[in-house]
Amino acid sequence: MTVDTIAPSRPRIKLKPKANARALRHGFPWVYANELVTDRRTRKLTAGTLAVLEDGAMNTLGLVAVNPDSKIIARILDKDPEAVIDQAWFTTRFERALALRSQLYDAPFYRLVHAETDGLPGVVVDRFGDACVVQPNAAWAEAYLEPLTAALTEVTGCRVVLKNASGRARGLEGLDEVSKPLLGEAPTAPVPVQMNKATYMADLTGGQKTGLFFDQRENHAFAARLVHSGAEVLDVFSHVGGFGLAMLAAGASSATCVDGSAAALDLATQGARASGFDDRLSIRQGDAFEVLTALGEEQAQFDVVICDPPAFAPSKPALEAGLRAYERVARLAAGLVKPGGYLGLCSCSHAADLTKFRNASARGIGRGGRRGQLIHTGYAGADHPQMPQLAESGYLKAVFFRLD
Amino acid sequence: MTVDTIAPSRPRIKLKPKANARALRHGFPWVYANELVTDRRTRKLTAGTLAVLEDGAMNTLGLVAVNPDSKIIARILDKDPEAVIDQAWFTTRFERALALRSQLYDAPFYRLVHAETDGLPGVVVDRFGDACVVQPNAAWAEAYLEPLTAALTEVTGCRVVLKNASGRARGLEGLDEVSKPLLGEAPTAPVPVQMNKATYMADLTGGQKTGLFFDQRENHAFAARLVHSGAEVLDVFSHVGGFGLAMLAAGASSATCVDGSAAALDLATQGARASGFDDRLSIRQGDAFEVLTALGEEQAQFDVVICDPPAFAPSKPALEAGLRAYERVARLAAGLVKPGGYLGLCSCSHAADLTKFRNASARGIGRGGRRGQLIHTGYAGADHPQMPQLAESGYLKAVFFRLD
Repeated sequence: MTVDTIAPSRPRIKLKPKANARALRHGFPWVYANELVTDRRTRKLTAGTLAVLEDGAMNTLGLVAVNPDSKIIARILDKDPEAVIDQAWFTTRFERALALRSQLYDAPFYRLVHAETDGLPGVVVDRFGDACVVQPNAAWAEAYLEPLTAALTEVTGCRVVLKNASGRARGLEGLDEVSKPLLGEAPTAPVPVQMNKATYMADLTGGQKTGLFFDQRENHAFAARLVHSGAEVLDVFSHVGGFGLAMLAAGASSATCVDGSAAALDLATQGARASGFDDRLSIRQGDAFEVLTALGEEQAQFDVVICDPPAFAPSKPALEAGLRAYERVARLAAGLVKPGGYLGLCSCSHAADLTKFRNASARGIGRGGRRGQLIHTGYAGADHPQMPQLAESGYLKAVFFRLD
Repeated sequence: MTVDTIAPSRPRIKLKPKANARALRHGFPWVYANELVTDRRTRKLTAGTLAVLEDGAMNTLGLVAVNPDSKIIARILDKDPEAVIDQAWFTTRFERALALRSQLYDAPFYRLVHAETDGLPGVVVDRFGDACVVQPNAAWAEAYLEPLTAALTEVTGCRVVLKNASGRARGLEGLDEVSKPLLGEAPTAPVPVQMNKATYMADLTGGQKTGLFFDQRENHAFAARLVHSGAEVLDVFSHVGGFGLAMLAAGASSATCVDGSAAALDLATQGARASGFDDRLSIRQGDAFEVLTALGEEQAQFDVVICDPPAFAPSKPALEAGLRAYERVARLAAGLVKPGGYLGLCSCSHAADLTKFRNASARGIGRGGRRGQLIHTGYAGADHPQMPQLAESGYLKAVFFRLD
């Protein structure tokens, strides 16, 4: 563990004059490498070192964590340059994060910490009752895992804390991919999670991300509102059955979950069983585009179709190809919706903003020979808060259409 | 009543080559005056006349209603140029609109028809149980009120249909401001409406718009989730208590409603009484900016503050001044939020898009000396569907922040 108790000894790093010091003063959390004076001393700092950030006129801006190997060369941790980053510091932040989630949710299953927005740059914590899964996706957080874990258990009372090192961002920070328990033992079975009147099964160690996509909870709930008793629904890129199980719980007579991962579909089946409606769940493993095409050839028709693909446009260079993929999903899916039925399309691509994604979706619907009313636009739930300064890049969007 | 049964006799009107015929073919509903060949014959058409629209190459695009006095010179009513606009035609559209609302809502209180998006250009219908309030905001609709009313009662079983002629859009169409019953008699007392576990009182004839702002229902519901038992909340520009009553129903120990209209506040009081919590409602009549300033001077503090002002930026020329007004609201309101409390800010301005409004709000919060997490972005409810082609102009936005 890195120890940092003697604030005066902290190195000082300096912004170039062209850097946007005003934005940083108003809460923007990142310094990009090209904004910093990177002399030999700065370049030599170990990833995760704490330092004091100054603007070009030597005014102190706050305490930062430096990573000379990352495009985001510094992340602001505290406005107070002398703040001590210890268990008490983490405790304050966790308490603040917990207050929001306790207000919003009846049960302790949510994203507890959403990185920068919750004052913990690069740190994601998902909570599953007595277990927390931490993603330390920035070098400083990796260095401070001990006080972080101690504060997390102090605030939440959790008895299991797992480190998940699978995040793509860790590579950009020069961090390894070794996941392991930080406290207690990893559960040997999937953890049941109650959401939207269904039971989901979350695999906290072997699954995608931290085991469950809490961010889609509100969009699952909206999809459930579109289901009438006896409806037949389709959930494409279903993962563990996020939309499908919520729609079954709302009274759908059948749900078909499509995913490439047999393990995810097995969790969907377990979830349906735990919810008491596994007799109404069908699964179809395979490439989603191929299954959509096959369903079209079978002239299958559903009352509600939801497509929640992985990020087709994770970065700017991938944008155009990504938008074409979203359009294709929309076109193929639109053909499977009964007249008067509903189509929900999701994107978790940072690079595709709402307007671009919505337009690609509408274009696909049109090319599928259908017309749609846009009845709802949803984002990630409130346990995934955004900084107003970064809200443009809000990654998750869901658009729901009623088709003629 | 205008009779239009002999389709072949319909006049034909023609797009200029520069007009976007492709957009019209793909569902865009309007032809602007500068896109149409306006010869003497076209200029002589009576407002509301049906005509057949052609592109520059004389391909038929559909049936339109013409209004030579309006900037929107033609609105597409039907892709079929020979469609007969009679009771059966309206019935088909009302049935389609009703199917969506019946799926979404347990009780018949909602916006039943949201104009273009529901295939009835310029026509708004709000439903209050057995009564419907119709806003015929385009000339053609005014001419076809008789079959429209007959179809509406046929589909909904409503026994009262009121025409509300107060819409700003009617002036642009050259229509009068005379509201009157089209069927049955106007109720002499406010109509109780159950929403979000509160009872609201809607004045169908003397109130603002059609009596209640159904569009905010989902945002009221989100505000209610921010309320803990014993919370003190403030609802500024409250109208009949939209946010305030929902938050009282969620357990707030007190709600203060601020509005300029004594009549609206009286309806809020009646709503609170009908809900059984009038002992927890305070009202404060006056200019909202003055009341916000006064509350600041009194050092009043609330757990949740919501501001839902009228459109400060209804049109492009008003945009800059409007954004300054939104910023000022945010600044004044932020100072009234307890540490860790919540601030919800709404805009119903067409001209201020989400990014501009959110940025103005964030700026105001910053100038009020606070920092905020953006926890939720909401729009009008699903009974106010949008055309994908016009979604950019979605008028209603609500942004919710948690403040440090």
